[in-house]
Amino acid sequence: MKKIMLVTAVAALLSAPAAFAAQGVQWGYTGKESPENWATLSPEFAACAGKNQSPINLTEFIEAELAPLSFEYKPGGFEVINNGHTIQVNYEAGSVFKVDGKDFVLKQFHFHAPSENLINGQSFPFEAHLVHVNDAGEIAVVTVMYKEGEANKTLASFWPQMPVMAGGSEKLSNTVNALDLMPENQDYFRFNGSLTTPPCTEGVRWFVFKEPVSIAKEQVEAFSKIMGGDNNRPVQPVNARPVLQ
Amino acid sequence: MKKIMLVTAVAALLSAPAAFAAQGVQWGYTGKESPENWATLSPEFAACAGKNQSPINLTEFIEAELAPLSFEYKPGGFEVINNGHTIQVNYEAGSVFKVDGKDFVLKQFHFHAPSENLINGQSFPFEAHLVHVNDAGEIAVVTVMYKEGEANKTLASFWPQMPVMAGGSEKLSNTVNALDLMPENQDYFRFNGSLTTPPCTEGVRWFVFKEPVSIAKEQVEAFSKIMGGDNNRPVQPVNARPVLQ
Repeated sequence: MKKIMLVTAVAALLSAPAAFAAQGVQWGYTGKESPENWATLSPEFAACAGKNQSPINLTEFIEAELAPLSFEYKPGGFEVINNGHTIQVNYEAGSVFKVDGKDFVLKQFHFHAPSENLINGQSFPFEAHLVHVNDAGEIAVVTVMYKEGEANKTLASFWPQMPVMAGGSEKLSNTVNALDLMPENQDYFRFNGSLTTPPCTEGVRWFVFKEPVSIAKEQVEAFSKIMGGDNNRPVQPVNARPVLQ
Repeated sequence: MKKIMLVTAVAALLSAPAAFAAQGVQWGYTGKESPENWATLSPEFAACAGKNQSPINLTEFIEAELAPLSFEYKPGGFEVINNGHTIQVNYEAGSVFKVDGKDFVLKQFHFHAPSENLINGQSFPFEAHLVHVNDAGEIAVVTVMYKEGEANKTLASFWPQMPVMAGGSEKLSNTVNALDLMPENQDYFRFNGSLTTPPCTEGVRWFVFKEPVSIAKEQVEAFSKIMGGDNNRPVQPVNARPVLQ
């Protein structure tokens, strides 16, 4: 019972950052609420000043034997919400990402423009974060980088349903399969980080696909117009963390 | 100038945990001041409740291409102190550990009995921590595990000079070369952790030699008698950290 409550709490946290605004602690990407001030906006955001924060510039890799990623996903993206910080698709229970001998359940995926992580100093116009939580409340994020090119069909299937107003939500006309977000080649980088938004909780497993997928310039613009600007946290110091490839 | 001050501050922190006691925030290994309470003993110790703490049980390794460790050491252990938490040998400037393209200067080495880190669940009777700091104030710890057997000659050279009282210090009769602490085979494990004592600062690079060296039972007993008991923090959750070998 305790476990279930914890998972529920974490899931609520992940899927509704706007709840913090409701409690009076607002944060954002510009002005006084911008990322460099997150850690001092609230004692609950103290981790934002931690030594193991995301995103990072992925570089100076250590070569490692990284096991192929195992996704046991079903189609399950049923709802798109605008939480004031991102556009997020909530996912039905039952889709599992297995890593380190643990089962992480896909809760939601959401987007940042431009990308939050960099690869060898390179920024991408768009990045998707697939957020998973296990029974112990541990979090694993799988990320997809996007490069400008042809329109992305998976995004196109629900882009017209993005709620324009913060707090809006819309039931998806077509259930999305998160597998369709992923690149063909599933080679990846791995590092240890945090949530990229307050409360910036650490202890998050990060998996970044090396191969970017395509997105149309107009798709990024439609997203950024709704967001009212960029929604990427700048890269944080890597400090003592090995970045594996 | 700022950098120099930072390094000095960090070095002071590392070499004199007893300073905290002087400021009224005492910590230890038993009773109210024991490790499970460190995080709440002082706001300055909040990191002790972090997600990336040391020591850990090193296990579930990821195979990685770890570069050979590069030690440019000179003999430099000039003084042995008892800071109330450990026995520590302070080191003259000029001995460098190179890793990740950075120069980490050896500041001191000190000891824990039994070992703080575990390897595949195994505890060792004794562990040495060689503490290095770079110009940016980043910390790298190289650790040596000890197994019970023949007397350790390097330790024997200064064991009789260990100060019995907390706060005591003694100039070493023979300058110690920290290289003499290390095993012949320098294969190692690597992970990202913290100081194992308050303030439990994170962002610390850890390198643990796989091969233990020998120590006599009597040498461990002489140390533990002075410490008045065990001085090992229990292992902390690994969370999202890869442990490399």
